[in-house]
Amino acid sequence: MTTDLTKLLQAPPTVVTVGADLLDRALTSQGATTVPVDWRPPVDGSADALARVAADPRHAAGNADAVDRILRAEPRWTDVVPAHEAVGLEKGQFLHAGPPLTWERASGPMRGALIGAMLYEGMAETPEQAEELGASGQIELAPCHSAGAVGPMAGVVSPSMPMYRVDNPVFGNHAWCTLNEGLGKVLRYGAYAPEVIERLRWMQDVLGPALKEAVARMEGLDLRAMATQALQMGDELHNRNRAASALFVREVVPPLLETDLDPRQIAEVVRFVNGNEHFFLNLVMPAAKAASDPARDIAVSSVVVAMARNGTDFGIQVSGTGDRWFTGPAEVPDGLFLGDYGPEDANADIGDSTITETTGLGGFAMAAAPAIVRFVGGEVADALDATRSMYEITHAEHPTYQIPILGFRGTPVGIDTALIVRTGTVPYLNTGIAGKVAGTGQVGAGLVSPPMEIFRDAVVALAEQAQPAA
Amino acid sequence: MTTDLTKLLQAPPTVVTVGADLLDRALTSQGATTVPVDWRPPVDGSADALARVAADPRHAAGNADAVDRILRAEPRWTDVVPAHEAVGLEKGQFLHAGPPLTWERASGPMRGALIGAMLYEGMAETPEQAEELGASGQIELAPCHSAGAVGPMAGVVSPSMPMYRVDNPVFGNHAWCTLNEGLGKVLRYGAYAPEVIERLRWMQDVLGPALKEAVARMEGLDLRAMATQALQMGDELHNRNRAASALFVREVVPPLLETDLDPRQIAEVVRFVNGNEHFFLNLVMPAAKAASDPARDIAVSSVVVAMARNGTDFGIQVSGTGDRWFTGPAEVPDGLFLGDYGPEDANADIGDSTITETTGLGGFAMAAAPAIVRFVGGEVADALDATRSMYEITHAEHPTYQIPILGFRGTPVGIDTALIVRTGTVPYLNTGIAGKVAGTGQVGAGLVSPPMEIFRDAVVALAEQAQPAA
Repeated sequence: MTTDLTKLLQAPPTVVTVGADLLDRALTSQGATTVPVDWRPPVDGSADALARVAADPRHAAGNADAVDRILRAEPRWTDVVPAHEAVGLEKGQFLHAGPPLTWERASGPMRGALIGAMLYEGMAETPEQAEELGASGQIELAPCHSAGAVGPMAGVVSPSMPMYRVDNPVFGNHAWCTLNEGLGKVLRYGAYAPEVIERLRWMQDVLGPALKEAVARMEGLDLRAMATQALQMGDELHNRNRAASALFVREVVPPLLETDLDPRQIAEVVRFVNGNEHFFLNLVMPAAKAASDPARDIAVSSVVVAMARNGTDFGIQVSGTGDRWFTGPAEVPDGLFLGDYGPEDANADIGDSTITETTGLGGFAMAAAPAIVRFVGGEVADALDATRSMYEITHAEHPTYQIPILGFRGTPVGIDTALIVRTGTVPYLNTGIAGKVAGTGQVGAGLVSPPMEIFRDAVVALAEQAQPAA
Repeated sequence: MTTDLTKLLQAPPTVVTVGADLLDRALTSQGATTVPVDWRPPVDGSADALARVAADPRHAAGNADAVDRILRAEPRWTDVVPAHEAVGLEKGQFLHAGPPLTWERASGPMRGALIGAMLYEGMAETPEQAEELGASGQIELAPCHSAGAVGPMAGVVSPSMPMYRVDNPVFGNHAWCTLNEGLGKVLRYGAYAPEVIERLRWMQDVLGPALKEAVARMEGLDLRAMATQALQMGDELHNRNRAASALFVREVVPPLLETDLDPRQIAEVVRFVNGNEHFFLNLVMPAAKAASDPARDIAVSSVVVAMARNGTDFGIQVSGTGDRWFTGPAEVPDGLFLGDYGPEDANADIGDSTITETTGLGGFAMAAAPAIVRFVGGEVADALDATRSMYEITHAEHPTYQIPILGFRGTPVGIDTALIVRTGTVPYLNTGIAGKVAGTGQVGAGLVSPPMEIFRDAVVALAEQAQPAA
């Protein structure tokens, strides 16, 4: 009699090999057929938490819902509003990038940006006065994310600054972001020289009002469509926004010309935007936040809804754990430096701009922007590998954010902190690099890795709310 | 005694295998070491001519000089001038794309464009009158190239049309091209409906003068730098000019705003340019001609200096053979069709726009524009293969026209008609597809191959002037 077992033993063996390829190589060299499975043990101390999270039937459904909400977003730029009105900031209150922070723990560029903002708001006459005020505990600090906003680099927002409003009508939410100042000596990189403050005043008096009038005549600007186009034009929309910024000028000029503004003032606005290939970053960031926010607060979902750095700590927020931040030390980015600057001049990682990676852009879309490897260091193949490796820790491919060179494959979206902990692969992030001394400005651009423990901590926190299947 | 020959016979054989891989496969299957050489016999009837051309010591030096001249070009847009002034056209005289042509041999779209130009110049009241006039022999036709100009598709130029002037100060030459009308029902695709003529009048009265004023305030526009940037933004600058057109708007708006033009008229100009992602094509074409012309008239050089189609014939001009055209039948392009149109609606290949391929753009830069495969048909890998295969028939890699995905390799430049004949590989060309019935307009876009015999004829003509080494 031939049992199933006998048949199995009579046929040539097919062996499933898991993890390190030693066994696989030994078998294939003997002519056996193998099915290799790429597997690594989960991060230390997470195996039990991972098992408990996975066992809760709400986990998979919650993740699917969270990712679906991110993919369905239709962010539109709709208005420009001063921060005191937009996010209710009063004199002496400031927003900053990343997780919560005190003056005492703030890095050089964060203090520099706060000093500049105090000078700009007329709270101090000199940088020294501002520094004293900061140290005195008389200023109030809160994360941008806590106010529905995002800010690049230091991300400092003060009451008088104009902010973009980006609506996501599909879910009725919106997000805010300041306007981009250009590169080099700018507030967001911690510079506060008189030229920096003067530029902020011009942005308040001329740029903000002009763009407010333009967008009022546009019925909004479809930022998802803009980002979709820009990805096919070599941008990854974090460290490279060249195409998107050019497309932005194209969109905004005709309505600007229909306003009653003096053509010479319009020319000034257009020259300012033209001189800054990162101008669109401050629109794609609130677009990403507006897309990501509806994925918050879904029970036991391990989808990451924010990644942000304050120059001292790297923090993430996860759908299933509300507004709680999981933080660890921010690393110094690895990249290329401007002029004579080097790694010793670099501050630790800073800014809310990693909200772009959270929704499938930036480092996750590196394959769309092979030219960027000259800006952050590396080879073209690295750009392709970066995007490919992010499919491992995400749940979906974006329906419109597509990468031509990958055969129009959608970018990886829906970062799962459980997948990160299980695979040991952390998100691939692009970033600018700020000088660590207050007042310096930008010193470079590069790549940075978040600390693994924050993802493990998030999984452990999720495990505490997990329930086994009934 | 061991002779060299004995040693050779004692060592394991290494066999150089040439051409078809039958021998190579037979040897390798027996464990022999082979050095396969990719070789195909030259095109029929060309072997003797190729040998005579190659034997002339001026041939290699002339080719090197021709290619060097193309690479050193620095084309700049400097002015907008009406055709009667720019190229001396008088009433009743018209330029057209491609090699010389008579009304009798002209295709539908070429006749359509000439009918439209006659209506536009007020030479006829109705299309029927214009057609009679065309057939009567009372109009004079000449190729754009013969007047230092280039024109996309039908390429028809009449005295009142504004033309871009593009200077190449390195060699003191310049080239001309009309302004781009947009897509669909437009003169260059053979349409002549009232809206077509009305648009041409607006271009003459508003667009041309506005751009003339803008460029006068710009000290010219560096078209080489623009094309270099656009190649890193997904354009190949023949069938895809999306990035370059957006960059053009960015450059031209500030100086436009410094003119005394009504802001509403400027808005009209910007909206027109914005509505047309091919706007920059009519600047890159004269830039390519301005780059290619200094490579003309070098003795025994087999470098191609122009490829152009008139809708009936495909023609090339080669450096060593002066203004002589080598022509053969233009093929119907293979590609994707708009709306309900299909291959049966397509006219044969038409236009001077293959001047872009002549200088390392268009089909030769396909790898820079993987998104274009959705527009002309094919897979992303085809785009990479297209560029790679063109290195086989060219002599250089462009120093600034670089392709990120190929590790920033320069695009293939300096097409050698001798290499084409020797390898059997013809240039890879992108093109728009015109409807074959006069008045239709564009019906699609795709790829087209030139007839091989024109390259062979050019080599045979070069052989007639070749001299053996002294």
